[in-house]
Amino acid sequence: MSLTIGVDVGGTKIAAGVVDDGGSIIEMMKRPTPAANAAGTIEVISESVRELLGRYDVEAVGIGAAGFVDESRSAVAFAPNLSWRHEAVARKVEERVGRPVVVENDGNAAAWAESRMGAGRGHEHMLLITVGTGIGAGFVLNGALYRGRWGHAAEPGHVRVVPDGRLCGCGNRGCWEQYASGNALVAEAREFARRSPGAAVRLLQLAGGTPEGITGPDVTTAAREGDAAALRCFEIVGQWLGQGLADLAAVLDPGCFVLGGGVSESGDLLLNPARDAFASALTGRNYRPHAPIVLAELGADAGLIGASDLARKR
Amino acid sequence: MSLTIGVDVGGTKIAAGVVDDGGSIIEMMKRPTPAANAAGTIEVISESVRELLGRYDVEAVGIGAAGFVDESRSAVAFAPNLSWRHEAVARKVEERVGRPVVVENDGNAAAWAESRMGAGRGHEHMLLITVGTGIGAGFVLNGALYRGRWGHAAEPGHVRVVPDGRLCGCGNRGCWEQYASGNALVAEAREFARRSPGAAVRLLQLAGGTPEGITGPDVTTAAREGDAAALRCFEIVGQWLGQGLADLAAVLDPGCFVLGGGVSESGDLLLNPARDAFASALTGRNYRPHAPIVLAELGADAGLIGASDLARKR
Repeated sequence: MSLTIGVDVGGTKIAAGVVDDGGSIIEMMKRPTPAANAAGTIEVISESVRELLGRYDVEAVGIGAAGFVDESRSAVAFAPNLSWRHEAVARKVEERVGRPVVVENDGNAAAWAESRMGAGRGHEHMLLITVGTGIGAGFVLNGALYRGRWGHAAEPGHVRVVPDGRLCGCGNRGCWEQYASGNALVAEAREFARRSPGAAVRLLQLAGGTPEGITGPDVTTAAREGDAAALRCFEIVGQWLGQGLADLAAVLDPGCFVLGGGVSESGDLLLNPARDAFASALTGRNYRPHAPIVLAELGADAGLIGASDLARKR
Repeated sequence: MSLTIGVDVGGTKIAAGVVDDGGSIIEMMKRPTPAANAAGTIEVISESVRELLGRYDVEAVGIGAAGFVDESRSAVAFAPNLSWRHEAVARKVEERVGRPVVVENDGNAAAWAESRMGAGRGHEHMLLITVGTGIGAGFVLNGALYRGRWGHAAEPGHVRVVPDGRLCGCGNRGCWEQYASGNALVAEAREFARRSPGAAVRLLQLAGGTPEGITGPDVTTAAREGDAAALRCFEIVGQWLGQGLADLAAVLDPGCFVLGGGVSESGDLLLNPARDAFASALTGRNYRPHAPIVLAELGADAGLIGASDLARKR
């Protein structure tokens, strides 16, 4: 049995796990990310890996990171939530742990995992869209991860969907992730509570009385109870999501969309309006099959599992 | 020397040509398309091919058609400007000409030609965008045509770029081709002439005096003379074009964009504002290389040449 280590490097925590060739996690550990410290982030990754290497015979290490990974899969050019700028992550970790290291964008790593062992099994062309704080993604085309010329493909969260729209963290305006993400869901709910507090009683109650206190889980809780205001927020965000999936279908015609990320855990609350909007918005919808939109199966560990498998197939 | 026949089936004419393995057209003929007659279109294609077969030793036939070609590359599911609906084009033409036939979307066929013998040579990942009446496209990813699960990929002209925007022939609103095409250029110029006739004197003069008379070539002529109104129209359409290319780069990160189609013949008039808008709109623009945006090299015959080459490599 071949073991590899997968590492998921996020803005708040670093998760490292030993994974077998069936995608099962044998042991996992988590540490806080010293996000403001580029060298410190390398050290925490390396320490975690070394600790696991002390207990397991591991052949290689795969690192999934939220950022622009270059086409050689060794350096991170830019990571908005970390302090890495043109950081030679693979080489530095290799020096510290003595095993081959590959680096992959975290959305790509998760897409690979879902396509091999999760909800995208059996699809030659599948797009993973992770709906969390923002929108992440990874594309499997013709059975392989598609990275683009410089490794920067699969960032549909930064496609402009509204001219002069909401300001995005990337510096542009109107990006899809400002309309179809967890942040968008919360923004809708807060705005609703500000404008129609009388209709947002349950949301405000859950949030401790102020619109600013409303969180994503509050909106999900209220929506599950049948609260009309919360359901409306899911409907709005789901419509933006489905419209964007229809736009991606016009470009890539995938066989399947897999939805992951925190917001997708709300299940049908998001899926139903997204599926409706997709079916209404797909160009040529009467003359073509409609790709299924399904929920991810591997949860928050998809990136770690995918990175470990990419290390095995390096 | 291996010869194949390429056929380009458009809404107004059918062009058929004998092409050698270097992409040179040896003989070409054109006939009007009986667009309202599905069977008649098959007959005109077959007659043209048979006539060429009488003079040349040809191994196979490639047909490029403006429409949704299925994944088996044999049938056209839907062609908005022809009367084909689920038409078994390859089988019917094969029966009539006695040679193997492959069918390809015309944008795909042109992209293949530009990537092998035209402006996209040497790029593993290149996107052809044809700016004509509408927007056509073809994607070469990892050195091969990308068709998607059902053969319907590469229709970025029907990505929504403006919510509740201009009505599109596909039935949706706000599609990119309503803002970044030849039709959009003419619509801008006519609107300009209606609202500010005093500033559109040259355009109106070229058009015989009425805004409705303004054509695409009129706008190009006036812009080449330095007319401010016409230049402004190119600037607006070029900005929409460049923004859309930046959005495609967020999704596909190609190594090169090739612009074809009638409007691209205006050269820098369109290219300069498109390049400026692309450089301003590309997400992560300070941390990544910018793909070059270049003009197509094979002109109106790209689809025919590409179809002939795809028949050779069937």
